[in-house]
Amino acid sequence: MSGWEQNVRRVTPYTPGEQPTQSGVIKLNTNENPYPPSPLVKRALEQADADRLRLYPSISCDELVEGLAKRYGLDKANLFVGVGSDDVLSMAFLTFFKSDRPILFPDITYSFYEVWAQVYGIPYKTVPLREDFSLSAEDYFGENGGVVIANPNAPTGICAHADTIESIIAANRDSVVIIDEAYVDFGAESVIGLIKKYDNLLVVQTFSKSRSMAGMRIGFAAGSEKLIRYLNSVKFSINSYTMNTLSQICGAAAIKDEEYFKKTVAQIIATRERAKERLIELGFTLTDSKANFLFAKHNKRDAKEIFTKLKEKNIYVRWWDKPRISDYLRITVGTDEQMDALYSALKQIL
Amino acid sequence: MSGWEQNVRRVTPYTPGEQPTQSGVIKLNTNENPYPPSPLVKRALEQADADRLRLYPSISCDELVEGLAKRYGLDKANLFVGVGSDDVLSMAFLTFFKSDRPILFPDITYSFYEVWAQVYGIPYKTVPLREDFSLSAEDYFGENGGVVIANPNAPTGICAHADTIESIIAANRDSVVIIDEAYVDFGAESVIGLIKKYDNLLVVQTFSKSRSMAGMRIGFAAGSEKLIRYLNSVKFSINSYTMNTLSQICGAAAIKDEEYFKKTVAQIIATRERAKERLIELGFTLTDSKANFLFAKHNKRDAKEIFTKLKEKNIYVRWWDKPRISDYLRITVGTDEQMDALYSALKQIL
Repeated sequence: MSGWEQNVRRVTPYTPGEQPTQSGVIKLNTNENPYPPSPLVKRALEQADADRLRLYPSISCDELVEGLAKRYGLDKANLFVGVGSDDVLSMAFLTFFKSDRPILFPDITYSFYEVWAQVYGIPYKTVPLREDFSLSAEDYFGENGGVVIANPNAPTGICAHADTIESIIAANRDSVVIIDEAYVDFGAESVIGLIKKYDNLLVVQTFSKSRSMAGMRIGFAAGSEKLIRYLNSVKFSINSYTMNTLSQICGAAAIKDEEYFKKTVAQIIATRERAKERLIELGFTLTDSKANFLFAKHNKRDAKEIFTKLKEKNIYVRWWDKPRISDYLRITVGTDEQMDALYSALKQIL
Repeated sequence: MSGWEQNVRRVTPYTPGEQPTQSGVIKLNTNENPYPPSPLVKRALEQADADRLRLYPSISCDELVEGLAKRYGLDKANLFVGVGSDDVLSMAFLTFFKSDRPILFPDITYSFYEVWAQVYGIPYKTVPLREDFSLSAEDYFGENGGVVIANPNAPTGICAHADTIESIIAANRDSVVIIDEAYVDFGAESVIGLIKKYDNLLVVQTFSKSRSMAGMRIGFAAGSEKLIRYLNSVKFSINSYTMNTLSQICGAAAIKDEEYFKKTVAQIIATRERAKERLIELGFTLTDSKANFLFAKHNKRDAKEIFTKLKEKNIYVRWWDKPRISDYLRITVGTDEQMDALYSALKQIL
């Protein structure tokens, strides 16, 4: 080992879902939206001026932040934007969790929380969900250095009631509580309105799922002015210009198209609910997912086996070799046609 | 103060140059390229498929990395890409400087180095440059936790000989040495070829200056395979998908256009050398800048006063109220027309 290697930060990185590049793949493994972004995004891109790219982007991302403020009834000072919600969450971990007390999050949840805690040296404790993967609010009422809850949760899709979430926020006025609402638009109730009541609440959302823009990396957080100011200070201590000009332009266009947003979200929800019925017919047990994915366990067959056989048929879903969830598959809700192909493949496999 | 504020990471963020939005401004304050990106970038953008933005970007940024590998005669495994060189440098600080020994960098240099050290809790020591702002290699031969050198240096524009840089790398085989070559294409000699000889060398460059793409946020690092692997592990512990689809497409297009790159860089160098003569005529003393900016001190008049009066005339340059450099202005090299406007304004002011 070279001498310099002794100074290297050793980490176990997050493992993202596969991104197969061959054609003909039905990709139901990374919760992308099966529908394209709003036509307004396409038009904004067509009208974008390539010459302007010689200049740095707007630091304050004004047009995008104004669009978000208008859409969510908030002030610009309540909003923070970043390169996907992962960037926003990572920055929030670095900013708000500088404590000796452990931060708390569920044992089954977005696995990046653990990775961020490790890379930034934040002490953490995972709190087991109930047997049925539901959240017990009381588990988060004790002393801690911060709380992180995904609602709906990933990869289960289960959502907690807004009152349950509020009870956690209210019980933790001395910690920052992050509510990760990456999937909230698909059927859960957002607590974004509560940022006016609780200055310790940070709500994080993304354009990657409900706004069909995973490729542009746009996430945002809403919180009290004070919280957002602290977050910006750390952001400006790492990279002044994170969100590039085209993401700002496309993001601002997307947030204006409420009609398209509602239409595509409704289509995904309808497909999801039909999928639940079909998968039950095929012998699966499912959580009541309110996200754009399903979390399904077959009553007889091994999840890993189904996962592997689906992949052989060019259908990619997600499976984890982890305690409590290794019997489950996480299946992104695609178009009706994609889901029909999935059912046919499953019928052959089972 | 709320209880949660006790867990907040307190930082003094980097202060980027102003980004005025009113029209008619001659912007010579943030070292942007006065020429637009390559026509290939414009075409790539026109051909980009908005529908594809629903999918996550390539994690490995293959097309861009392949283009870089080809251009610099390196293997793909020697390259790392990020959201501007600030992202790359910040990630490198976090990855390689986990030591109790202080990292070293000059007292006069890119002021973000100090900010990253602070935000990540890295001990550091600034090493005074010589009176004429030149670098004394021997100052970096002692024990340290890492070394960071900008070459050409900012904001002085002074460049060290490649042999001087190599002597620092060779003397520090137990530390990672980062050479920040953001401005190297404007006349300094790159040490990127030395990564094959020294596994502790990381060379960082950017598309923001010589490739006219500040708005797209593209930076990259070259280093030994081992170094790049460590860097990727930390990157994947923070955000799997940082560089969005359009940045990857536009960056890959830009790196292909060697002819345009050479032409615009040559134009900027020619304008810079003419500007040195003109500014000397106007009573300035200048460093021998090899970057796309000038570092100029007037022999009689106060720098802050000139800075302020130029701004009143809608010409933005950069001035810092800092020890050793408060008599200087940093002036980005613009087009010949912009520089003519600058000389006229200076004539009126002086």
